[in-house]
Amino acid sequence: METPQVKFCYKNVTAEILGKEHGITKQQFDELAKKTEPLIGRLNDERKAGKTRYRDLPYQADTVKKVKKLADEVKECENFVVLGIGGSALGNTALQTALNPYMYNLDEKQRKGPRLFVLDNVDPQQMKSFLDWIGDKLDKTIFNVISKSGRTAETVAQFLTICGIIEQKLGKGGLKNQIITTTDAQKGTLREITEKLGFRNLCVPDGVGGRFSVLSAVGLLSTAVCGIDIEQLLAGAAEMDKKVSRKDFYQNPAAVNAAINWHYYNRGKKISVMMPYSFALKDFADWYRQLWAESLGKAKDLAGKEVFVGPTAIKAIGATDQHSQVQLYREGPNDKLFTFLAVQDFERDVEIGKAPDIAPELDYLSGQKMSRLLNSEKIATEYALLESKRPCLTVAFDRICPYTVGQFIYLYEATTSIAGLLFGIDAYNQPAVELGKDATLALMGNSKYKELAEKIKPVTEIDNRFII
Amino acid sequence: METPQVKFCYKNVTAEILGKEHGITKQQFDELAKKTEPLIGRLNDERKAGKTRYRDLPYQADTVKKVKKLADEVKECENFVVLGIGGSALGNTALQTALNPYMYNLDEKQRKGPRLFVLDNVDPQQMKSFLDWIGDKLDKTIFNVISKSGRTAETVAQFLTICGIIEQKLGKGGLKNQIITTTDAQKGTLREITEKLGFRNLCVPDGVGGRFSVLSAVGLLSTAVCGIDIEQLLAGAAEMDKKVSRKDFYQNPAAVNAAINWHYYNRGKKISVMMPYSFALKDFADWYRQLWAESLGKAKDLAGKEVFVGPTAIKAIGATDQHSQVQLYREGPNDKLFTFLAVQDFERDVEIGKAPDIAPELDYLSGQKMSRLLNSEKIATEYALLESKRPCLTVAFDRICPYTVGQFIYLYEATTSIAGLLFGIDAYNQPAVELGKDATLALMGNSKYKELAEKIKPVTEIDNRFII
Repeated sequence: METPQVKFCYKNVTAEILGKEHGITKQQFDELAKKTEPLIGRLNDERKAGKTRYRDLPYQADTVKKVKKLADEVKECENFVVLGIGGSALGNTALQTALNPYMYNLDEKQRKGPRLFVLDNVDPQQMKSFLDWIGDKLDKTIFNVISKSGRTAETVAQFLTICGIIEQKLGKGGLKNQIITTTDAQKGTLREITEKLGFRNLCVPDGVGGRFSVLSAVGLLSTAVCGIDIEQLLAGAAEMDKKVSRKDFYQNPAAVNAAINWHYYNRGKKISVMMPYSFALKDFADWYRQLWAESLGKAKDLAGKEVFVGPTAIKAIGATDQHSQVQLYREGPNDKLFTFLAVQDFERDVEIGKAPDIAPELDYLSGQKMSRLLNSEKIATEYALLESKRPCLTVAFDRICPYTVGQFIYLYEATTSIAGLLFGIDAYNQPAVELGKDATLALMGNSKYKELAEKIKPVTEIDNRFII
Repeated sequence: METPQVKFCYKNVTAEILGKEHGITKQQFDELAKKTEPLIGRLNDERKAGKTRYRDLPYQADTVKKVKKLADEVKECENFVVLGIGGSALGNTALQTALNPYMYNLDEKQRKGPRLFVLDNVDPQQMKSFLDWIGDKLDKTIFNVISKSGRTAETVAQFLTICGIIEQKLGKGGLKNQIITTTDAQKGTLREITEKLGFRNLCVPDGVGGRFSVLSAVGLLSTAVCGIDIEQLLAGAAEMDKKVSRKDFYQNPAAVNAAINWHYYNRGKKISVMMPYSFALKDFADWYRQLWAESLGKAKDLAGKEVFVGPTAIKAIGATDQHSQVQLYREGPNDKLFTFLAVQDFERDVEIGKAPDIAPELDYLSGQKMSRLLNSEKIATEYALLESKRPCLTVAFDRICPYTVGQFIYLYEATTSIAGLLFGIDAYNQPAVELGKDATLALMGNSKYKELAEKIKPVTEIDNRFII
C-alpha cells in the first residue's frame, strides 16, 4: 500500500487562472525561484550549524522511547490534563483534534486513552468549573505541566493551584504520583522543583522555540497517552524533511509555499487565511496562527532596520464560515491569500438520509455521502473566490492520519523558516512579548517592577470623558 | 442593587494617549461626530420604517412566552442538539459559552438543563463520531433544526440524516417527539415539512437576517432550555437600545464605536481584533466576526459604485494569545484596531496556590486571585500595545450575566448598522454568498446547474505542473 501523502497545490494562484492583476505569472514564478533557491541552500547550512534544531525532532529515537515508556505508565489514568500556554498547548490540542474522534472526551467507547484537557488560560470561571469537576478525581488524573523556564505566569499559576489542591486532598505524596513536568533539561525554576520533589519528567529540547516544539516531548506525551501513533507522526515529518530540503525550487513545497506567501504580502495581500475543510484539522489553523505570527511579525530586519512586517494569519472553518466570512472574502478588499486544507478520503463517513416526498427540491442530497457534500463545498467556495480574483492554495491530505499530519507540521515549519529568510528577519525570536510579561509582574505587585508600574498607570486611570 | 452594565471605553485611541500619528485628535472626533450624528437620526427613521426589525426583538413578549413554554416541555431531555449554521448557530454557541459553566456538558452537577451540542458543519468524521454516541440516546434527545428557508444545504443534510436515524430506531412517530423546527412562519421547505409532519416549531421573524437573529427564537430556545434567563437577556438589550438611540454622538456608544472603527479603516487599519479576556466571552468574538464580515464586506456602495470595503474582524483570546499573536500585534504592520472585552467581577474565582520555598521567584503569585492575574494581563497587554502605538478599545462588563450579555449583543448590532451607514453600503444583504451555494448544488449533481458545473471544471482539473 502506498503511504498517504500531503500535497501542495498552487494552480489557483497562477495568472493562467487568476489573470495578471491578481495571479502570478510564469516570469514572476521564475523570479521567485531565483530569489528563493539560494535560501534553501542557506537553510540547509543553518541546519548543519545547529541553528534550526526543530528540524532534527523527527529523528529523536531516544525521546520517543522515553515518551512511550512514560505514556505506558500513565495511560490507565482517567484524565490527562496539560497545563501550558502558547507553544506548550496549541500543538497538543491540534494533534488531539486531528487524530482522535470528536466525541473522545464524552464517549468512553470512542477512546483508547484517558480524557484529555489542555488548559491554556487563567480564566477564573473556567478554572473553577474545571476544578469543581476534577476535585474528586485527582487520584485518577495526571497533570502534565509544560514550561521550559518554569516562570510562565499562567502555567505557574495553574501549577501552584493544582499542587495546592492535590496536597490538600491526597497529601504531599500525591504530588509525585499525579504530576509530570516537561521542562528544561538542566536549569530553571521548574527543573529545580522537579528534582527537589522527584517528579517524573521529560525535557524541552534546547534551541527549539515553543512554536516549533510540537514534535518534541512537549507535544508527544499527551498524544501518545491518548493512543496516537507518535512514530508514524515523526515518520511523516521525516518524509517531508526530504521534500523541503530539495534544492530545486519547483520541487520544494515549502519553498514554493513561502515564496507565494511572501510575494502576495508584498503585493498588499497581508492577510493569510487558513481554511480547513475538516473539523479535525481546525486547531491546526490556530497552531499555524502562532507559528506565523511569532516567527514573521517583526519590527526589524536582520540588519536592524525598522520594517514592521508580517502577514496576519487567520483561521476560518469550512463549510461553517461560508455562512460567516465568505461575503467579506469575495467582496471586501482583495487583501487576502487563502489556503484550504482539504481531505480526499475521510476515514469515517455518513450517508445523508432520504428527502421526504413533499420536498423534491432536497432530493439532490438523498443518499449522498456527507464527505461529497463537504468536498463539493470546498470546490464551490474556491470557485466563487476565484471568480472574485482571490488567490487560493490547497494543502491536500490523502487522508488524516499521524503520517500525513506529521508531514503537514513539518511542511509549515520549513515554510516558516524560508519565509523568514525571504522577509529578511529573525524567525526564531519574539522580542515584543517581554514587555507585557514584565508589565504583568508589575501589576501583580512584584516589587522589582515598581518603576514600570508607574508607567502603566495612564493606561488604567479612569477618565470619564471617554467612557459611555 | 444597581443593574450591572457594559461600558464602552475609548481613551486609548485618543491622540492624548497615542499621539497624533496613530491616535484620534479632539478635532477628528468632532468631525466624526458631525458626520455620524445625522446617521443616528437616519437609523432611527429606518427603524420606524421597519427596515431594521432586529431592533424590536427585545420587546417580543409573545415570542418569549412561546419559547419558555416549549423550553419547559423539553427541558427534561438529556441532550439538546441545534442543527444550524452561520446565524443559526453562532449566537446559540456564544450564549451557552458565556452563560453556562465550562464543564457544563461533562458535569451534570454543573448544569440545570440538558447537554447542548451545536452542530454547525457537515464534516463526516465529526458527524459520525457524534452519531455513534447519540445513537442509543435518541429518545432522550431533542433536535432543534434552524433554517429560515429550509434549503440550507448543510442544515438540510444534517436534518435528513437525523430523521433517517430516528425513523429507523424509534419509528416514524419518533420524528414528532424528537424534532423541533425554527423556520419561516409561512413559507419554505422546512415550514411545509413542519406542517405536514406536525413538528413543534418556532418562527424565524421576517426582516431579520441570520446574523441579527440571536435575540429571536433562533437563539432563545436552546438558551432557555439550558437554564439561562432569556428575559434578563432581552432586558439588557432593551436598556442598550435606549443608549444607542441617543442623538448626541458622545453619549451614544454604538455611534462612537462605529465611528472609531470606520475612521481607522480609512487610515489603513483594516483589521479589527476582538480579544476577550474571558473564556466565557470567546465565542462572541466569532459571532462578531460574522456580524461584521457579512454586514460590512461589500463590493458596491448604495449608489452602485464599486468600493470593495469591509474591515476584517478577527478573534484572539486573552491571556492565551499573548503567547501566540502579541508579537505580531506589536511589531507587525500597524494595521489593526484592538477591542478588548474585559470583566470586572468574575462570578467564580480561584485562589492561586502557594509557591514552594525553593522557588521564591514565584512567590508573587502565592494566594492571589486568578481574576487579578487575568485582568493584570489585559492591562499589561494593552500597555504593551500602546507603547507600540496600536489603538485599543475596551468593552467592560461589570460582570457576565444575561443582562450584560444582552447589552453587549445589542451594542454591537447597532454599531454594525451605524458602521454600514458610514461606509455607505447595504449592511443587510449578502449577495456574494449565492454563487458558492449554486456551485455546491452543481457539484452535487443537481441537474438545474449543468452549465455552472462546466464552468467550475477548470478549478478542479488536476494539473501536475502545480502540485508538489
